[in-house]
Amino acid sequence: MTGATHTPSALIDLVSRALVASSTSPENAAAVARALVAAEIDGQKGHGLSRVAAYAAQARSGKVDGHAVPRLHSTRAASIMIDVANGFAYPAFELAVSELPKAARQTGIAAAGFTRSHHAGALGLVVERIAASGFLALMVTNSPQAMAAWGGTRGLFGTNPIAFAAPRPGKEPLVIDLALSEVARGKIMIAAQKGEPIPEGWAKDAGGDPTTDAAAALKGTLTPIGGAKGAALALMVELMAAALTGANLAFQASSFFDADGPPPGIGQFLIAIDPAAFGGEWAFTERLELLAGEIDADGAARLPGTRRLALREAAMRDGVFVEDAIFAQLRQIAASGAV
Amino acid sequence: MTGATHTPSALIDLVSRALVASSTSPENAAAVARALVAAEIDGQKGHGLSRVAAYAAQARSGKVDGHAVPRLHSTRAASIMIDVANGFAYPAFELAVSELPKAARQTGIAAAGFTRSHHAGALGLVVERIAASGFLALMVTNSPQAMAAWGGTRGLFGTNPIAFAAPRPGKEPLVIDLALSEVARGKIMIAAQKGEPIPEGWAKDAGGDPTTDAAAALKGTLTPIGGAKGAALALMVELMAAALTGANLAFQASSFFDADGPPPGIGQFLIAIDPAAFGGEWAFTERLELLAGEIDADGAARLPGTRRLALREAAMRDGVFVEDAIFAQLRQIAASGAV
Repeated sequence: MTGATHTPSALIDLVSRALVASSTSPENAAAVARALVAAEIDGQKGHGLSRVAAYAAQARSGKVDGHAVPRLHSTRAASIMIDVANGFAYPAFELAVSELPKAARQTGIAAAGFTRSHHAGALGLVVERIAASGFLALMVTNSPQAMAAWGGTRGLFGTNPIAFAAPRPGKEPLVIDLALSEVARGKIMIAAQKGEPIPEGWAKDAGGDPTTDAAAALKGTLTPIGGAKGAALALMVELMAAALTGANLAFQASSFFDADGPPPGIGQFLIAIDPAAFGGEWAFTERLELLAGEIDADGAARLPGTRRLALREAAMRDGVFVEDAIFAQLRQIAASGAV
Repeated sequence: MTGATHTPSALIDLVSRALVASSTSPENAAAVARALVAAEIDGQKGHGLSRVAAYAAQARSGKVDGHAVPRLHSTRAASIMIDVANGFAYPAFELAVSELPKAARQTGIAAAGFTRSHHAGALGLVVERIAASGFLALMVTNSPQAMAAWGGTRGLFGTNPIAFAAPRPGKEPLVIDLALSEVARGKIMIAAQKGEPIPEGWAKDAGGDPTTDAAAALKGTLTPIGGAKGAALALMVELMAAALTGANLAFQASSFFDADGPPPGIGQFLIAIDPAAFGGEWAFTERLELLAGEIDADGAARLPGTRRLALREAAMRDGVFVEDAIFAQLRQIAASGAV
């Protein structure tokens, strides 16, 4: 496919302009643009520039409030609630990245709940920033219906990712970021468009039976990792991200991909932990680096995030490759406020 | 197999006596006995009475200090460190169950780290008790080496379970408790003893290749759920349970199953969250019960823990069935302090 490389700052500027042209405040547009371009740079294209068109359409239709201002409430010494107010999630995440470490430093552990929220994008980017401040971070989000309870047929859970990051003094933080489905729905959509079958284990049909038919899979549910265990973890995420924050459950949430219906109104939960308040910063770092060394020395094993950091380094050095079709779409939205 | 039913209190008394006869203080013996019998009642036999002989042998050899007194340090408003002092873990867990909710109520979220710890048994029993006080609870433990980093061959992680519980006013708490390995090593040990093959996907041999040979599997590593995703979650648990608490990493820890060598010295991490400090108790309960209802209405789907609660109810009503061989072993230890 044809395309060209662009600097991150040029892409952030273009995405910002596309959103400002689509009923979004300059501050919110900039926060969204930073997050989407950062995901694109890290090779997480499903959370990158491909999202701009749907975001812009949702801002224009009012499914997301582009002018919303997230409101932070410090409910107790270690707890924060952030009302995303049906705006984009990223401005609220930036607020939490700024405020949550202050609480965690005081109390040892602190958490922020996000309600009336929207697509969280690459969760790893949020926990990474908390870890860059010296804290362990754990974050979960729910998302519109994708997976069934174990033994069931209905999409009662989202793909419900879990992200975790840990500080590594003098190095980039260790980041783990994974959805609880075996694969992203996007891979099944591509197979369906090509009329190709999907591997066993990816999805179940509407009757709850395993299927290799991509079209049948799209009418059914994604398979959780580890069978009943992954489904149980997805339930845990649903309860922490949505029930605990008073947000919409997955099966109540509208789609992230179209501009119809009410706001998704999902939720997130983010925990920051100060190692100095537990076994100590030194003890933590010593053990993390010892384990990292053992992993690197063990044949083909690598720490999670190795590929992501290599992609990021290449993009910062060589620019970000963007397909012409996506770039033209961004320019068109920026110029007209519509695709 | 032949056996007989016993009341829970009779079993707790017998296990306590077996441990007191094996260089363990009466207080610690009682806490261990309560935990093991509770796991047995819940059908978690791998964490139940089958452990008494190894525990007693370890107390006699000094691998576990049966007289240790766990020491609690409130390091900040929301953080507690508990030095298990190479004793049994259960007395330390009882201390945390008593103290952690007080901190969480004050600050919204609070956590306890456990260091110089021992086999955690059925983690679900600990989080269940936190949930019974009205808090969400999340707990992780590491354990001696069992799983490899993704792509590797060495046992750098334990089976590293994650447990979660949530309060359900008027009902038993919802409890999730799962190891990150596809199966427990015990299932592979049984196949090896019978000379039977194991299913694909359970384990890898010493070279890191998938195997169906049970004997080869015991020389290799257990497969994590979800491949690279489960291995990443196991790394997360290793960092929270051991690195954060200043405990031994899995690959440094001695076995739970023999009386040789130094104490295992592993760690645990337990978080308690007050829903009233986030979206509100009512909002949490309303959403949890809504989701539970949707799950129960969805064909064969059931909430996690349904089987466990049914076994518990039956045991409380009819008594606990114990094989004669296990019961005789307990009596012998109680009588002599040796098997």
